[in-house]
Amino acid sequence: MGEFELIKRYFSGLDHGPNTLIGLGDDAAVLNIPPDHTLVVSVDTSVVGTHFLESTFAEAVAYRSIASAASDLAAMGAKPLGMTLAITLPEVDEWWLRTFSEGLCRACADFQCPLIGGDTTRGPLTISITVHGLLPEGRALTRDGAKPGDDIYVSGTLGNAAGGLKVELNECEGDDFELNERLHDAWLSPTPRLELGQTLLPFATSCIDISDGLLADLGHIIKASQVGAKLNLADIPLSAELVTVFGQDAALAMALKGGEDYELCFTLPEGTAAPQGCRRIGKITDGTGIETKDGPLTFEGWTHF
Amino acid sequence: MGEFELIKRYFSGLDHGPNTLIGLGDDAAVLNIPPDHTLVVSVDTSVVGTHFLESTFAEAVAYRSIASAASDLAAMGAKPLGMTLAITLPEVDEWWLRTFSEGLCRACADFQCPLIGGDTTRGPLTISITVHGLLPEGRALTRDGAKPGDDIYVSGTLGNAAGGLKVELNECEGDDFELNERLHDAWLSPTPRLELGQTLLPFATSCIDISDGLLADLGHIIKASQVGAKLNLADIPLSAELVTVFGQDAALAMALKGGEDYELCFTLPEGTAAPQGCRRIGKITDGTGIETKDGPLTFEGWTHF
Repeated sequence: MGEFELIKRYFSGLDHGPNTLIGLGDDAAVLNIPPDHTLVVSVDTSVVGTHFLESTFAEAVAYRSIASAASDLAAMGAKPLGMTLAITLPEVDEWWLRTFSEGLCRACADFQCPLIGGDTTRGPLTISITVHGLLPEGRALTRDGAKPGDDIYVSGTLGNAAGGLKVELNECEGDDFELNERLHDAWLSPTPRLELGQTLLPFATSCIDISDGLLADLGHIIKASQVGAKLNLADIPLSAELVTVFGQDAALAMALKGGEDYELCFTLPEGTAAPQGCRRIGKITDGTGIETKDGPLTFEGWTHF
Repeated sequence: MGEFELIKRYFSGLDHGPNTLIGLGDDAAVLNIPPDHTLVVSVDTSVVGTHFLESTFAEAVAYRSIASAASDLAAMGAKPLGMTLAITLPEVDEWWLRTFSEGLCRACADFQCPLIGGDTTRGPLTISITVHGLLPEGRALTRDGAKPGDDIYVSGTLGNAAGGLKVELNECEGDDFELNERLHDAWLSPTPRLELGQTLLPFATSCIDISDGLLADLGHIIKASQVGAKLNLADIPLSAELVTVFGQDAALAMALKGGEDYELCFTLPEGTAAPQGCRRIGKITDGTGIETKDGPLTFEGWTHF
C-alpha cells in the first residue's frame, strides 16, 4: 500500500466541520475564521517508549495523543476548530492502523475537532498533533493573571492517570480488576475539559491544564503571575478507586506529582462560585512558591531532559 | 539542562509578528486573523534517515524542514502567519541545538514566519513543522482548476535538489567543487516560492509545489482537475551546473523525477503572461495522463511506503 492509499484508507473523511473550506487532498487546508474571533494554536507530540508503550492499544495511542493536545485548547478557554496529524510509522501494519484510526474517529467526534490535514512519513513511531481553536476576540485564559486572595480550584479528581499508568506498566499490585481498569481508562482515554474551559473564560483569572502534575502546573501559574500559593492538602480531590488501590498517602502523592490527568487548575476572585465538579484546594498568596500549613512544597514534575 | 531551559535557550524570541497576540510560554499561542481572510494550515515532517542524514548540518536540517512546509503555503498562494515546531531529540547536544536554532532563525526571517509554539520531546530525531498562512477570503490556489488548453508553467530550474542530494550522499562523481556545492546548496537550503504564489493567486487556474518530482506533482494536478497534460521535454528548465555535472539525459531525468526542488508548477489560461523566471513547459489536454510528442510518461515519484 502506498502513502496516498494509506492516507485515503485510514485518515480521510474526518475533515468535515462548520469552518472547513478545503480539507484533505490539496497542498494545505483552508479554514474559515468567524468574525471577531482569534485563532489558538498548540502542538503536542507523543513518542513510543516515552509517552506510551509499544504494547499500548493503538486506539488509545490516537485518542490520548489528541486529548492531550486538545487539553491545551481547554486551558485557554478555546473551542476546537480543527487539527493536523503528523504521524511517523516504522511500517504499514494494517491492523494497527485500523485500530489507530478508530481512536482518531472517536476523538474527532468527542472533541468536535475535524482532522483537516496531515503528513505520513516513515521512521520510529511518533505522533504529533497540532490543534487549532477559536476564542472571542480579546479573550483568553492565560497563566499570568492570578492575584493574591484568589481561590485555587481544580476540576475532577487528580492522580487517576498516574495510577492508570502503573496498571499499563504492570506495576499495580491491586487485585481488584474493575478498580484497576477504571484507573487504566483514565490514562488510556483522558477527557480534556473543553466545555469547562469555555465556561471559565469570562471570570477565571488564570488557568492551566494538569499535564505535568498539579505542583508543576500550579507552579507555572504562580511563576507567570508572580505570586505564591497555599494549598490545603486535605481538599485535593482523590477518587475512591485511587485511594482504595494505592492507599491515601500514595494517592495524594500521585495527585500532586503525577501528570496526564488533563483536568484544569484555575483561579477565581475570592468568593466567586465555581462550576459544578470543581473543588477549591487553596488560595493565591503574595509570597513565592507553593506551601501548605506544614511548610513549602517543591514543584517537581515531568520534564523530558 | 531541563526541557524548559532548552526551549528558552534555543527556541524562544522568534514568536514576534504582526499577528502574534500571545506567543510562546502559555498553553497555546493566540493569533489575530485580519478581517476578510481565511486561515491556511499544512504540516510537514522530516525524519533522520529518511529526509536527511545523521551527518546533515543541523542548520540545514532546520532550514529545509521549514522551507518544505512553507512551500505548501506558497502552493496555495498564502502569506505566512506563523508556525509551530514539534521536535523529538535523542539527547541534548548543545552544539547541534545551537546550529539548528541558527537555521530556525534564518528561516523565520527569510519566510517572515514567526515560531509561535512548539513541543520538545525525547526520542529519535524527528522534526514536524505546522505552518499557518493567510489568504484573502474566497481565494486559493488549488490543484483542481486546470482546464484543457491551459498552459503549464514551472518556476526556476528543476532537478538541482536531486543533484544536490547526490552530493550529500557522496554519490556525485563530478570533480568541480564549486558546481557541486551550488547543487548541494539547492538541496540544503531550498527557497519556497512564497511571493510567486501570492502573485499567481488572482490568475492561475491550478498550482502545486514540486516536492515529489515534476511528473508526480503535475500528476496530482491532472488527477484532481480530471484532465491530461502534454509536456515539451526540451522546454523543461535545467540549470547549467546540473547539466555540466551529470550530463543532459541524467539532468532531465532528475528534473522529471527528483523531488524537493520546491519550485511551483502551475497552469494559466492560454496566452496569459507568466511572471518573470517561469517557463512554459506544455499544455493541459482533454486526455488523461502525461504525454510527450513521443508517447506517455509515468508519474513515478517519491512515496514513503
